[in-house]
Amino acid sequence: MYPKTFDDLIYEFQKLPGVGAKTAERYAFTVLGWSDEEISELAETLVNLKKKVKKCTRCGNLTEDELCEFCKNSNRNQNIICVVQNPKDISVIESMQQYNGVYHVLDGLINTQKGVLPDQLNIMTLLNRVNERTEEVILALDPTVEGETTALYISKLLEGKCRVSRLAHGIPVGSHLDYTDAMTLLKAFEGRKSS
Amino acid sequence: MYPKTFDDLIYEFQKLPGVGAKTAERYAFTVLGWSDEEISELAETLVNLKKKVKKCTRCGNLTEDELCEFCKNSNRNQNIICVVQNPKDISVIESMQQYNGVYHVLDGLINTQKGVLPDQLNIMTLLNRVNERTEEVILALDPTVEGETTALYISKLLEGKCRVSRLAHGIPVGSHLDYTDAMTLLKAFEGRKSS
Repeated sequence: MYPKTFDDLIYEFQKLPGVGAKTAERYAFTVLGWSDEEISELAETLVNLKKKVKKCTRCGNLTEDELCEFCKNSNRNQNIICVVQNPKDISVIESMQQYNGVYHVLDGLINTQKGVLPDQLNIMTLLNRVNERTEEVILALDPTVEGETTALYISKLLEGKCRVSRLAHGIPVGSHLDYTDAMTLLKAFEGRKSS
Repeated sequence: MYPKTFDDLIYEFQKLPGVGAKTAERYAFTVLGWSDEEISELAETLVNLKKKVKKCTRCGNLTEDELCEFCKNSNRNQNIICVVQNPKDISVIESMQQYNGVYHVLDGLINTQKGVLPDQLNIMTLLNRVNERTEEVILALDPTVEGETTALYISKLLEGKCRVSRLAHGIPVGSHLDYTDAMTLLKAFEGRKSS
């Protein structure tokens, strides 16, 4: 129906997550209304992405340099390492504005069903990073089967080398008791504190 | 938080309609996982868009040639012209697989509040197209104030030159009477047919 290049763009946009034919069409019409400069800005940024953005050689976070902003920041405590599944989780932790350590990005979780084994993850580099100065490794992984498996696996590997901790389970702040599932409630009971 | 190029891409994606920070971030991570070929495909399509896609000199529909696929198709009745607001509406009408005439794209509707006046729309070209061979001009415009105003304006202009018709109002097929608003119901009563 549409000219080929327009159809091509609709097809390309549909490769983005959650974008169907209707949304892709809407995006394509929006882009059609852009100026030449606006379009080439997007096109150039796309091309630059793969050229410039790479992984921090120390922690696996995204960076345009050898080391990411956390690894090269001497104001951050380089001896406390927070292990996360992907770079996205770092931005969530940073939004607390409380954590002052560094990170280690696993790039996934152990998932035997999907064939993701420990050696495909960024685990050996974590092991090599941990030394006698390391104060703590905080495992900030999803509370899912895969997250728990990965956390357990890393805990075993680091046993006796440094303190390893996990994030607390409990009732989310601002939620209601009657909306809390039994497992979360159990964890909240187990982790109760004297007030 | 993210490397500059990555942040740039998130910013670019947010220019698309309905895309907020979270969705843009998700798109950027998806694109980061693409191969170099996949990324340059999208980048090239974007650049090609403005270069290749233009407006049909006769009807204003999108095309990569001088005339659009409908205007140069001798199997379509060139003497029945369906007037639409934008190229998107053509694909809806084509989905009926019933209409065999050609189109005329106004590129908007008269909207005095937003300062869209008749001379900013593709109306003069419509007037120039209509001649003694023209059998009918079908106004397929939105049933809104702007659509009605534009339809009325064009009807007046074409008065005495050819048959001008409007799409029927009524109850949508598959809907329920009790969900129909009073104005639609009134139009459905007015347009009732003997069965």
